[in-house]
Amino acid sequence: MKVQGKHFKTVEMENGIVKMIDQNILPFEFKIVQSFTYHETCNHIRQMTVRGAGAIGVSAAFAMAQACNQANENSYVDYLNKAKVEIESTRPTARNLFYAVEKVYQAGLLSPDNAVMEAYNIAKEDEDACKSIGLYGNEIISPKANISTHCNAGWLAFVDYGSALSPIYKAHEMDKEIHVWVDETRPRSQGARLTAWELSNESIPHTIIPDNATAFLMQQGKIDIVVVGADRIAANGDTANKIGTLEKAIAAAFYKIPFYVAAPTSTFDINCKTGDDIPIEYRNPDEVLWVSGRSTNGKITEVLASNPTSQALNPAFDVTPCELITGFITEKGIIMPNRASIGKLILNK
Amino acid sequence: MKVQGKHFKTVEMENGIVKMIDQNILPFEFKIVQSFTYHETCNHIRQMTVRGAGAIGVSAAFAMAQACNQANENSYVDYLNKAKVEIESTRPTARNLFYAVEKVYQAGLLSPDNAVMEAYNIAKEDEDACKSIGLYGNEIISPKANISTHCNAGWLAFVDYGSALSPIYKAHEMDKEIHVWVDETRPRSQGARLTAWELSNESIPHTIIPDNATAFLMQQGKIDIVVVGADRIAANGDTANKIGTLEKAIAAAFYKIPFYVAAPTSTFDINCKTGDDIPIEYRNPDEVLWVSGRSTNGKITEVLASNPTSQALNPAFDVTPCELITGFITEKGIIMPNRASIGKLILNK
Repeated sequence: MKVQGKHFKTVEMENGIVKMIDQNILPFEFKIVQSFTYHETCNHIRQMTVRGAGAIGVSAAFAMAQACNQANENSYVDYLNKAKVEIESTRPTARNLFYAVEKVYQAGLLSPDNAVMEAYNIAKEDEDACKSIGLYGNEIISPKANISTHCNAGWLAFVDYGSALSPIYKAHEMDKEIHVWVDETRPRSQGARLTAWELSNESIPHTIIPDNATAFLMQQGKIDIVVVGADRIAANGDTANKIGTLEKAIAAAFYKIPFYVAAPTSTFDINCKTGDDIPIEYRNPDEVLWVSGRSTNGKITEVLASNPTSQALNPAFDVTPCELITGFITEKGIIMPNRASIGKLILNK
Repeated sequence: MKVQGKHFKTVEMENGIVKMIDQNILPFEFKIVQSFTYHETCNHIRQMTVRGAGAIGVSAAFAMAQACNQANENSYVDYLNKAKVEIESTRPTARNLFYAVEKVYQAGLLSPDNAVMEAYNIAKEDEDACKSIGLYGNEIISPKANISTHCNAGWLAFVDYGSALSPIYKAHEMDKEIHVWVDETRPRSQGARLTAWELSNESIPHTIIPDNATAFLMQQGKIDIVVVGADRIAANGDTANKIGTLEKAIAAAFYKIPFYVAAPTSTFDINCKTGDDIPIEYRNPDEVLWVSGRSTNGKITEVLASNPTSQALNPAFDVTPCELITGFITEKGIIMPNRASIGKLILNK
């Protein structure tokens, strides 16, 4: 998608150098960081320079390819095994990461060049899947719809287009005159910072709201449909996504508002039978207690916005049970959930 | 309640001077501000130096008493009428404000001294009611309970003790070994700033969480009961409270967790038949876009935590339908809601 009229991708690899948009300083500064080794790429995943299911997956694929290039011939497989463990430990919840690392690892066992090619394939697949999600998802968006989304499942969360935002981009391109409610998504404010920035760049009407306001707007009849992304989807359709997704899904069910999850099929993990099998990442409590933003002097700074003597808990994801989900928008079409058989549907499609 | 071992009240009046704890700079600085005229007191209510249903009511009562003292004999009633309108316009949602201003106004029609006496009565009633709410509320808190609360309905929201926190203080005093989940309550973070500060001062175990995490903790079985305050309760039991209360109530109903509203009967407004009759205050969108806190240099500062080119919406309250409320903890006992008859119950109790 575009930044000030120029096309960018979230993450790319050129001559073994991984280049990513630094999402920790967006929307205040737009900067591309480069990482030359798989260790550096791992650090960027861990520190959330790059975040979002697809973008993590592709970055991890590139990291694995970098590791294959870094390994020396004598201890090649050992080095790959060690790198695989390290890359997989960066973020535990996103399915795409494990999917991507495994594929590049297998290719890397043949040769470093194979690994690089496989990583490029994964990036291309991600882009194509997101584009296709936009086409299918657009079909369920009515003209003048008020759409609610949580966190950032836009192009910044993938290589391009995004999952939850891809249908929104398509609907806007079709002149449907849509409006998007963007919740802040505390503690890291990916909604207010990243989704709002993406929509601004594409001139799509949108309004930022506190996370607390979603049910209120549903009650007022001001939300027609909710579309969110996913970090991992279990075989029965239970969906791990950014903390707060569960609360929005419950509210949507209460007000009988359609609640869709948009994700490429690489996000489905049939090895997880139910949501109980999905590990939930707990992040540093300081992310809750401190808020980062641009101060009046133009510098990016952090402020303590909580009582200094209190502790915090920071679960990064929650799991929405499949019963609360109206449908999954995938690159293969829209799947209406049928508990205990999502995995089969995905495999057979 | 205590601040570093010394007893304080949220708002007091001495020799016509209204003294309030400045809640905009808590918990980073503890400062008492003084206001000498009713205009100044109105400004403090508007700017949220003082906030919370009861504290707004008592501050407004003191403001009305100040107006009676400021009025000159020739245009006494005209001055009172003008002042009443101005005081009532400061915050539209809190029932206690209108209740208190009306009472002091009526007393003021007799004499300024009567107005002052009535304002003191209202402050005393508020304190007594909150203490009593603690006694009744404590009865429904089990030993080792994990209690969730939203926003700040503690002593800072009243003159002393608080509404939702009063049972918590009592349960702690009874050594029940409780733990409190304190959600941030964006956009103004009254949970993370004020409730956490209150609980810290009383050494009550508590943990700050993002607003997005409540349903997740409910799903994990880590919340036994929810207790919140109220800004206005309609005759049918529909309850206006801080934005986000509705979302927590829906999640509590989904997980069959008891959801209690704690409020003095002065919060009930039998002139509002249902929640639809309660006006909702929309505040400045900058409260959503900017976050205030203490920077690393120790100064209280604001940072822009959202995309600079986006708009925001800032509804300050929402209305929770009575069906979602397990009971009302009042100074007259616990009322189990019976839709369409709450008003009668209150009147007959």
